[in-house]
Amino acid sequence: MLRITVWNENFHETTQPEIAAIYPNGIHGAIAEGLAARLPEASIRTATLDEPEHGLSAEALAETDVLLWWGHMKHADVADDVVERVHERVLAGMGLIVLHSGHFSKIFRKLMGTTCSLKWRNEAERELVWTVAPTHPIAAGIPSPLAIGQQEMYGEFFDVPVPDELVFVSSFSGGEVFRSGITYRRGHGKIFYFSPGDQEYPVYHHADVRAVLANAVRWAAPAPGFERMPEVSNPARDWFVQA
Amino acid sequence: MLRITVWNENFHETTQPEIAAIYPNGIHGAIAEGLAARLPEASIRTATLDEPEHGLSAEALAETDVLLWWGHMKHADVADDVVERVHERVLAGMGLIVLHSGHFSKIFRKLMGTTCSLKWRNEAERELVWTVAPTHPIAAGIPSPLAIGQQEMYGEFFDVPVPDELVFVSSFSGGEVFRSGITYRRGHGKIFYFSPGDQEYPVYHHADVRAVLANAVRWAAPAPGFERMPEVSNPARDWFVQA
Amino acid sequence: MLRITVWNENFHETTQPEIAAIYPNGIHGAIAEGLAARLPEASIRTATLDEPEHGLSAEALAETDVLLWWGHMKHADVADDVVERVHERVLAGMGLIVLHSGHFSKIFRKLMGTTCSLKWRNEAERELVWTVAPTHPIAAGIPSPLAIGQQEMYGEFFDVPVPDELVFVSSFSGGEVFRSGITYRRGHGKIFYFSPGDQEYPVYHHADVRAVLANAVRWAAPAPGFERMPEVSNPARDWFVQA
Amino acid sequence: MLRITVWNENFHETTQPEIAAIYPNGIHGAIAEGLAARLPEASIRTATLDEPEHGLSAEALAETDVLLWWGHMKHADVADDVVERVHERVLAGMGLIVLHSGHFSKIFRKLMGTTCSLKWRNEAERELVWTVAPTHPIAAGIPSPLAIGQQEMYGEFFDVPVPDELVFVSSFSGGEVFRSGITYRRGHGKIFYFSPGDQEYPVYHHADVRAVLANAVRWAAPAPGFERMPEVSNPARDWFVQA
Repeated sequence: MLRITVWNENFHETTQPEIAAIYPNGIHGAIAEGLAARLPEASIRTATLDEPEHGLSAEALAETDVLLWWGHMKHADVADDVVERVHERVLAGMGLIVLHSGHFSKIFRKLMGTTCSLKWRNEAERELVWTVAPTHPIAAGIPSPLAIGQQEMYGEFFDVPVPDELVFVSSFSGGEVFRSGITYRRGHGKIFYFSPGDQEYPVYHHADVRAVLANAVRWAAPAPGFERMPEVSNPARDWFVQA
Repeated sequence: MLRITVWNENFHETTQPEIAAIYPNGIHGAIAEGLAARLPEASIRTATLDEPEHGLSAEALAETDVLLWWGHMKHADVADDVVERVHERVLAGMGLIVLHSGHFSKIFRKLMGTTCSLKWRNEAERELVWTVAPTHPIAAGIPSPLAIGQQEMYGEFFDVPVPDELVFVSSFSGGEVFRSGITYRRGHGKIFYFSPGDQEYPVYHHADVRAVLANAVRWAAPAPGFERMPEVSNPARDWFVQA
Repeated sequence: MLRITVWNENFHETTQPEIAAIYPNGIHGAIAEGLAARLPEASIRTATLDEPEHGLSAEALAETDVLLWWGHMKHADVADDVVERVHERVLAGMGLIVLHSGHFSKIFRKLMGTTCSLKWRNEAERELVWTVAPTHPIAAGIPSPLAIGQQEMYGEFFDVPVPDELVFVSSFSGGEVFRSGITYRRGHGKIFYFSPGDQEYPVYHHADVRAVLANAVRWAAPAPGFERMPEVSNPARDWFVQA
Repeated sequence: MLRITVWNENFHETTQPEIAAIYPNGIHGAIAEGLAARLPEASIRTATLDEPEHGLSAEALAETDVLLWWGHMKHADVADDVVERVHERVLAGMGLIVLHSGHFSKIFRKLMGTTCSLKWRNEAERELVWTVAPTHPIAAGIPSPLAIGQQEMYGEFFDVPVPDELVFVSSFSGGEVFRSGITYRRGHGKIFYFSPGDQEYPVYHHADVRAVLANAVRWAAPAPGFERMPEVSNPARDWFVQA
């Protein structure tokens, strides 16, 4: 049983009718719907900013194998203690998938240690997502390019650590490029950042984008036996012989 | 002109006579002495925890190209705003060299995003530091192994991100291994972690260790033109053509 | 169905009684036995140097998902056209696991592009294999350290490309260290090099070593849909839109 | 003194007047001219396919610190023993810069171990070369994007090992992307592949391209003390203590 939580700040959909028209069930609802269709073995719940503890209580996190994160305008409103809790849970093995403007979320910046800044331009450009690691599980079955008709441009330099794996690179009509699908391991947890997904375009209804997210969830699920934080220890000499 | 600041919490030396005997001028003094002998072009200052702003005022940092960091018992006493300031300065291009028990410092954990936990055992074991990247500038002229007669053991698993470059791997008498010389790039800054250096042993008087630190300082110095934080920007289409 | 071929030059076992005593069914036999016990879903065959085409005909390779390779004295006797065939099959997606002295095999050097030289000393030293990537599938369930009572020492500098992933690092009684478990992706194929396994010691009877090899076979199995060589192509503009 | 050899198959320029019009002194001549203007400390020679030993005798290589390689139609005509000699010299520390269609040269494929295949389309598209590692020495002073008005398109998937460092990523008018500036370390040698440079366009007259090549030559120059092949050795126990 794969336990998924889709988190969304849920702000644009509830305050802008034109966004609500694209995502009548919220961005989280669209993402959850796409995952449900592709991961029948999974248990999927959603959580949003306005819930108590943002829907990310210790109990909720303890029962989450993979967390997806969409945020944009409300990064500052996410409580620090919740961020700390999510951070610990990632280091303890929970998978984390950070989406689009989540690059500036507290949790992503805390895990990366950098500004996570980038170039952007919102002019409904065509984004082409090219696979540069064709045998990576997250790219399985994904066309190269994955073509998105209209998207916000995100461009380099993307100020993140050099990724452990570079899976996708995007180009935009205006000519910019972006490392749009990148993986990291932190502690016992696996992290995937995927940049497509501005709220103004129906990106999370796109079948190929949904397939990427389903692949990513499978990939990010914790390794068996690793649901605990890495710990400092003070072993005796030859402890391994005595054991 | 290469401007170096050697920072030290300066606690063991001022409270434990046996440590003061090893480092009569402090660990920072011994490190600065070793650098001065090898980097005649450099301007070297030291800074300690008990100075105002820990000796790391905005002005001091603005005039520092490479910062070395030694801390152990007093990580929690380092003010968060100073850590924030050092973090920003690293992302803006300042080199950072983190030493030994500095693995648990606020600044290193903030840059890594992980627990930075490890195994340890203080039984005066022989540490052998082997070069696995022989052409790396930090390994230039360093014997492989670099042999340290007595040291605290640091062992894997070391919970850090996969390094950008693995330069040194150590073994200890008890059989453990440790990734003892590792590099990272974060923002515009370069980071080197080097694990030898427990306060109970005269490690920073060791000629080869001093040579590693001098190499590391040269390597970590900022790239020309990069003394600024990476920034978000919102360029017009074809801005590069118009420019 | 996972199809495995275990290849061995089968020289020591057939010419030295003391080696035959350790491996009465050959090194390949011991490896196959260990895999069979752990991979009940697999079809396992062995192949040796003295068979026609070394047991690696085009047909045999076409029906192999993962190839394990043990060689030592007879690297030069492996026919170049067979090496070429194995190389193409790896690039087309077949997994390859290279063992111990196979570091100097034609196929490994062809895939690495380097000398693959190292330090060695055969004095029955204790090897401790430490995990530095605890959540990697190849490390699943493997104790850290994995202790091997007697082994030939392999030491750094190991002249291979920087691995895609560093899974294991070994230490030896004499103090040397070695990157003993490393992964590479080449073309569509996955490669794992694992250094324990000198013919003079019963390494392939060791339960934990057998578990590593079983993990590695599972990990190296081809990604679905990638059983073909990467190809050059000359697409029309906007071919992806027309398609 | 930095000793540079610029190698070119010199075929298009000597058989196609329209190419000769772009490169009256050959592609090698244009590259050498660009380097000479930027590296006044360097000694620069050129070598071509039709010279004895292709101008790459043992003596010539022994006096070369960095070799640049341009080839396209005549890869198969390069003698295997010369390729072997260049390969050994790279592993012994010589820098190698492989240009454009040199991705299919014998020497590059031998060093990579893969097919080095890619997508291509020659329709005079605009290439934009974006920097993704802004502090890398090869990117120093290079605008991002570096804009090339007309170029052959090279697109992913580029079948090479995951680079040690990804410095540049290109986009093309048709929408494709390419990892256009990548580094590798092999043995003691440093390798840089840079994809712009089709013979039909005056790419090597472009000031920014020339600046990239000058940066790359400086970066690829051998590390002091490493002009020798990595070697196998059989040290005694504690040789490092006895020494």
